[in-house]
Amino acid sequence: MARGLVVEGRLGPSTGGRAPRELRFRADAGVVLAAELGATSTTVGLTDLAGKLLAHREEPWDVAAGATATLDLVERLFDELLAGRPSGQVWGIGVGLPGPVEFASGRPVAPPIMPGWDGYPVRDRLARRYRAPVWVDNEVNTMALGEYRTGIGRDVRDLVYVKIGSGIGAGLISGGRLHRGAQGCAGDIGHVPVSDDSRTVCRCGNLGCLEALAGGVALARDATEAARHGRSEFLARRLASGELEARDVSQAAEHGDPVAVELLTHAGRLIGVTLATLVNMFNPALVVIGGGVAESGDLLLAAIRETVYRRSLPLATRELRITRSPLSNRAGLLGAAFMVLDELFSRARLGAWIDQGSSVGRPELSAEQERLPERGSGIGR
Amino acid sequence: MARGLVVEGRLGPSTGGRAPRELRFRADAGVVLAAELGATSTTVGLTDLAGKLLAHREEPWDVAAGATATLDLVERLFDELLAGRPSGQVWGIGVGLPGPVEFASGRPVAPPIMPGWDGYPVRDRLARRYRAPVWVDNEVNTMALGEYRTGIGRDVRDLVYVKIGSGIGAGLISGGRLHRGAQGCAGDIGHVPVSDDSRTVCRCGNLGCLEALAGGVALARDATEAARHGRSEFLARRLASGELEARDVSQAAEHGDPVAVELLTHAGRLIGVTLATLVNMFNPALVVIGGGVAESGDLLLAAIRETVYRRSLPLATRELRITRSPLSNRAGLLGAAFMVLDELFSRARLGAWIDQGSSVGRPELSAEQERLPERGSGIGR
Repeated sequence: MARGLVVEGRLGPSTGGRAPRELRFRADAGVVLAAELGATSTTVGLTDLAGKLLAHREEPWDVAAGATATLDLVERLFDELLAGRPSGQVWGIGVGLPGPVEFASGRPVAPPIMPGWDGYPVRDRLARRYRAPVWVDNEVNTMALGEYRTGIGRDVRDLVYVKIGSGIGAGLISGGRLHRGAQGCAGDIGHVPVSDDSRTVCRCGNLGCLEALAGGVALARDATEAARHGRSEFLARRLASGELEARDVSQAAEHGDPVAVELLTHAGRLIGVTLATLVNMFNPALVVIGGGVAESGDLLLAAIRETVYRRSLPLATRELRITRSPLSNRAGLLGAAFMVLDELFSRARLGAWIDQGSSVGRPELSAEQERLPERGSGIGR
Repeated sequence: MARGLVVEGRLGPSTGGRAPRELRFRADAGVVLAAELGATSTTVGLTDLAGKLLAHREEPWDVAAGATATLDLVERLFDELLAGRPSGQVWGIGVGLPGPVEFASGRPVAPPIMPGWDGYPVRDRLARRYRAPVWVDNEVNTMALGEYRTGIGRDVRDLVYVKIGSGIGAGLISGGRLHRGAQGCAGDIGHVPVSDDSRTVCRCGNLGCLEALAGGVALARDATEAARHGRSEFLARRLASGELEARDVSQAAEHGDPVAVELLTHAGRLIGVTLATLVNMFNPALVVIGGGVAESGDLLLAAIRETVYRRSLPLATRELRITRSPLSNRAGLLGAAFMVLDELFSRARLGAWIDQGSSVGRPELSAEQERLPERGSGIGR
């Protein structure tokens, strides 16, 4: 109450003694900014303190344009969302990036599809600009969190979110908490070796990685080859009007094109083999499949399901559900907001916050609590 | 203090006002019983409430003798450890079993090397006998917990414990907590397919499982075949005086026997490939290798290390340590005791306990808190 987060409401019914007064959580006491940077689009949103999405913006954008230009765009979109609001309303900022992130420092670490981003101080830049605590994570982690907190995974304490887009990655929820791992790179299933195929070099530099054989880029590449070699009329027609994408393969399969059916089934089986291993190792109750490629047809999901149930241990699949993400591309954005709310309202943080005094509004957290960098970054608060 | 767990000690130095009185945790207020049932031996121990081992017993025992006979032995050994102590001192019991366990009910689930144990109410039997709460888990989980709470993994919040014995299994610590998974079978790496070898049928019924190709039983089997076919003089001499075991292979390798070196290197590589996948997926800071086969020589560990570092992603291995378990066979026993202490003194449980009243001694937990079975088992407390 001292912090303005809880207010007294109406008097409740008396049960004999003094009538109790209702307490109401003031979700509108502040806002959270969230950003999800995909490979080909940037989405930002504004939520209240209960994680309800109040407004959002989405723009096509190539994340390979680099950190400076991309964050210029993010800040412009954030400013649009904040227009007309009093300053100081931003309680925190959450960002999901399409690459490995060192969670403790909020910096990308050698991200394969984000040239120019390696080590860029994403957190520090936004923290300085908005004078608010910032948390940055891999987008697959924020998607897993989004599904766990607001989506189909609500109340499922052990959950795996798998994103099948250009690349392939997974986010893991262990006992109701995100399992990030020691370097924050847990769930990296895209670079598990699945084949002795020694021709296909992955963007990571290794051979036989799942992603290089079954991701969206791989599907488009193999479909293009099939079209060029006259093995698929449907795909050849599509190729005549522009570069093929994974969705062309799904559409070809829906039209009964045998090459496309074979490509999707093969990709689904390879993903299924890797997920069977993940299911054996992690024993989730739910696997949520999302990402552009997963959304584009049932064939891939069917092949994944069939392989996982066949190759995992009976005990691990006894109550396992494998389902498509119904939140779709909202999962990452909402998850980024909940990452902020979870950190902001964690038990340890709340205790320190209440001890800090009684001014109304956003907590003035200590530098350590805001995970500000150890070495000076010019941020004095 | 009301429960006799904390007592006032000496007066501390005054800093101006009233001198503070020291509080002392009475670790001797009760005891915990722990049991680790291995494939070929049974170990039981008695610890204080801080997890300090006060006494223990170990006997050779074939767990395949069945649940009734094995628990008769466990109870006899428990009684020996408790002899002379007043009744009511047992605050809890922890048991590790060499097979999958449904943690919530404390029953083994289709354990491959424990005929007659499937669904046996281990928890209920011991709870009734000792009138104390009981927790039962897979031994690899208790070993992981032992390493995390008292061993080399202390303060390492993301840790994998790998047991290489007759079979192969892993226990996972995620953010300082055991990750059991939805059915309690997380960490089951023994049945990940690692080869297209279609001859070797695993005890689980599938083909190409890691355990069937690289576990202790597999090593002994392959060594026996090599000896019979005249490919190793050393192993043939050993075979003449009895069945070969995995340790014979290690000893042969130490004597430079090329067949044994090849067998251990091959097994180490297969285990390494699977651990590389686990490292990519789980991103631990530490992998602890234990179990009888792992203890019997450096060659296997060297092959595992080499393969994991070569096949995992750079970020996941940047600060990864892979080390042999120094606790050895104590890890499981101590972990079983800490499982009890962690459950007994969890924040939620302590709160309810303190609310229950002020009698000194072991908490009278509610049925729900003791995870007693939902359907009547004759245990009325």
